Amino acid sequence: MASKMNTMNQPTLQDDGTYLYEQVADKMTTLIDGGTLRPGERIPSVRKLSGQLRVSISTVQQAYVLLEDRGFVEVRPQSGFYVRLRSRNLPPEPKPSSPSPSATKVGVADLVAKVFEAARNPNVVPLATAIPSSDLLPTKQLNRQMAWVARHNGREAMNYDFPPGNEALRRQVARRSLDWGCSLSPDDIVTTCGTMEALNLCLRAVAKPGDTIAVESPTFYGILQASLGMKAFEIPTHPRHGIDLDALDRAIKKNKIKACLVIPNFNNPLGSCMSDKNKKQLAEMLGHREIPLIEDDIYGDLYFGATRPKAAKAFDKRGLVLLCSSFSKTIAPGYRVGWTAPGRFKAQVEHLKTMNTVATATLPQMAMAKFLENGGYDRHLRRLRKALAMQVQRMILAISQYFPEGTRVTRPAGGFVLWVELPKRVDSLELYRKALDKKISIAPGPIFSAKQKYQNFIRLSCGQPWSDRLEQALITLGRLAGKAQG
Amino acid sequence: MASKMNTMNQPTLQDDGTYLYEQVADKMTTLIDGGTLRPGERIPSVRKLSGQLRVSISTVQQAYVLLEDRGFVEVRPQSGFYVRLRSRNLPPEPKPSSPSPSATKVGVADLVAKVFEAARNPNVVPLATAIPSSDLLPTKQLNRQMAWVARHNGREAMNYDFPPGNEALRRQVARRSLDWGCSLSPDDIVTTCGTMEALNLCLRAVAKPGDTIAVESPTFYGILQASLGMKAFEIPTHPRHGIDLDALDRAIKKNKIKACLVIPNFNNPLGSCMSDKNKKQLAEMLGHREIPLIEDDIYGDLYFGATRPKAAKAFDKRGLVLLCSSFSKTIAPGYRVGWTAPGRFKAQVEHLKTMNTVATATLPQMAMAKFLENGGYDRHLRRLRKALAMQVQRMILAISQYFPEGTRVTRPAGGFVLWVELPKRVDSLELYRKALDKKISIAPGPIFSAKQKYQNFIRLSCGQPWSDRLEQALITLGRLAGKAQG
Repeated sequence: MASKMNTMNQPTLQDDGTYLYEQVADKMTTLIDGGTLRPGERIPSVRKLSGQLRVSISTVQQAYVLLEDRGFVEVRPQSGFYVRLRSRNLPPEPKPSSPSPSATKVGVADLVAKVFEAARNPNVVPLATAIPSSDLLPTKQLNRQMAWVARHNGREAMNYDFPPGNEALRRQVARRSLDWGCSLSPDDIVTTCGTMEALNLCLRAVAKPGDTIAVESPTFYGILQASLGMKAFEIPTHPRHGIDLDALDRAIKKNKIKACLVIPNFNNPLGSCMSDKNKKQLAEMLGHREIPLIEDDIYGDLYFGATRPKAAKAFDKRGLVLLCSSFSKTIAPGYRVGWTAPGRFKAQVEHLKTMNTVATATLPQMAMAKFLENGGYDRHLRRLRKALAMQVQRMILAISQYFPEGTRVTRPAGGFVLWVELPKRVDSLELYRKALDKKISIAPGPIFSAKQKYQNFIRLSCGQPWSDRLEQALITLGRLAGKAQG
Repeated sequence: MASKMNTMNQPTLQDDGTYLYEQVADKMTTLIDGGTLRPGERIPSVRKLSGQLRVSISTVQQAYVLLEDRGFVEVRPQSGFYVRLRSRNLPPEPKPSSPSPSATKVGVADLVAKVFEAARNPNVVPLATAIPSSDLLPTKQLNRQMAWVARHNGREAMNYDFPPGNEALRRQVARRSLDWGCSLSPDDIVTTCGTMEALNLCLRAVAKPGDTIAVESPTFYGILQASLGMKAFEIPTHPRHGIDLDALDRAIKKNKIKACLVIPNFNNPLGSCMSDKNKKQLAEMLGHREIPLIEDDIYGDLYFGATRPKAAKAFDKRGLVLLCSSFSKTIAPGYRVGWTAPGRFKAQVEHLKTMNTVATATLPQMAMAKFLENGGYDRHLRRLRKALAMQVQRMILAISQYFPEGTRVTRPAGGFVLWVELPKRVDSLELYRKALDKKISIAPGPIFSAKQKYQNFIRLSCGQPWSDRLEQALITLGRLAGKAQG
């Protein structure tokens, strides 16, 4: 559907940083969620709604495409848009988080290690790790590029590609930076072994062990682990709109916060996406106090809406935003190709990179650059986004069917993880163990918090295409959660 | 010549941990160095020397092969062994180091960064970085394996190869461990992005920021840098026999040493190689006090003698030795494939690996495993060792010809770096800058010491095949060193 978008007018940005068509889509979603528009019903024609809401035809068209991408409606040829079956009566979203306002030494290592280990077992239904199924990845195309560069760049392939790393790859990343509101040059970028190394290097460039880092709550356990003896200050975060800027403002005024680490686009595990307005405010608020912002944008390309959300880096005026990302969620986890644009900290990051792994493997960088250059990426992304949006939607529906009353679940507008709040009586660590006995791996809530909060939350990955096996796993999970004792 | 070795008797190990034939070769070297045997002269026949020294024919044969490999003698068909031209009047070796007995916070970052940066310039003669010329590497064979695995293992290639890492590769490493006196199983091993990541992970597994690590003096700057806020306690080290065990013993008795980090085989920059006896003593001395030993064996396969030196890990009875190595000096720096056998710290190392880079790139590991499996490695190593031994010897001769009086230089029995002590008046940092103006990169001594000692030392890499350009660079270097003011 994204190709259809290209022929439409440019969407109009509203004061609150969202697009008008998104507001229209949200309105329709509310009607569908609330049961006003029921499964199988035809929704108003584009012309009709345009008149009802007094917005342009093109805005409604864009809204409907978005609704389709999100899995709420489907097109019936020659007829119009219809509400998809089973897309109502969904569980509500979790409420914004409210972590206690103090810093915590991070130490959830053992638990994370166990979860990771379980996830490696091929006999287990993999709902724990946020890994896209290789069925969704451009396996043939990318490996063909790899075979080609291995055959044609012998000597270059053998040598260290010292930091800042492969130039062709940095050029490709810089070109794409226009998509997320930046205009990076290849010289702004340092390549890394995936986003994880990028985050590690950036954290070490701006903070020392013992320093306090402000993070979203909940947030990706990798970041907490990576923090190398640093303390995490957890900031309340809204499941749809992201980090609470007022709370962050209070935190940086009252405490010595050395840096801030945020996933503005499709936070893992929340799926929240900050508006442009909030991103701008975040960059300015921290910039004003000279606090570096480490931005993890690994899910940024996996938006379900019509346009790629911007990076907070787009609003960076002082070189204080260290943007980190990779191709591990979009092209090939196993290639381990990531990068960072660390602003004014580039020299330190380059040096830390040299001392951490010397260089990123040469051939994977070359193959990735070739793949990006040859134009397959955008086409692939369109397919991938659509598939993930469907999988996320399918999983939400299954949760609404099979999970006990009182369950809440997020509505991510990108990425492919769901954050599920279970009834208070459910202990997610026990659920994790019981699920593993049934050969299902899930990520228990406490690993997303330095304080090991979120006892009754789990994160589910929607990286696998829908299947009977998956549905059976969700039925089992729901049953286990329902049986949990108070 | 190594193939000839295979038909000889097994060499006899002496009480001091060296082989008898090595002692014979050392004796002859002394005669050549001292001018008793002069260039172009025929040395005693095998039979004659066997009678003179009362050792077996086979021992003398092995000694002469070693001397040939080291570049001291050459065979003339139907005639015998002759002293190579220009192989006498060599500068003496540097004396054992004597660092002051206290711990130092490591901080030579800026200097190391500059040296690395200069080394990346292709217009500069690369004597600074210990990188083997790609002319010496199995470029075609390895890249062919890479193209093959990329075409035939599509899905597997795309996926994370989570720690402990690629199983086929771990099996190959475990097989080779017999060569260095160990008998590892694949389960003992964790793969990494090169030796540098292995060292980082092992350091972090056994020590915290602020802890003190005992190291050789001088030693590889990467290790010092990697130490992540740890302190280095520099131990005197002999240019031929390695770390001074008495001094180490005193240090661990008097100070709180959290771990010891050593390069027993061909220390970088010294080229020293510990005897088996000393390795055993080292492992026992530390084991007795439960102090972990991180062993860097990256140069172990690059021996010039007849047999592969053992790892200290061979004498590890308590799982306290964390052995680290890679294929970056022997097969392909750019593939970034390394590994560690971290003994009882395996769980921590695996976890730290996950949190540092998640996984090592999949395809490079698969290609490397295939290359090792298909048996090309040993053949390649024989050629590589011979080439490096010649290059090292050639460089020593050039130093003896072109460097000022008072210069000392090491006689490494493996690896490919030389540690050069210049007259006291020479400031190696100034020499480094002046050499760079002339487009020659060298590694100044202070980067090999946390205390920035070794002001009048430089390290020269012999990774490049001998050429007029190289000779010209050494003439220039020698001239610059000679002109240095007191």
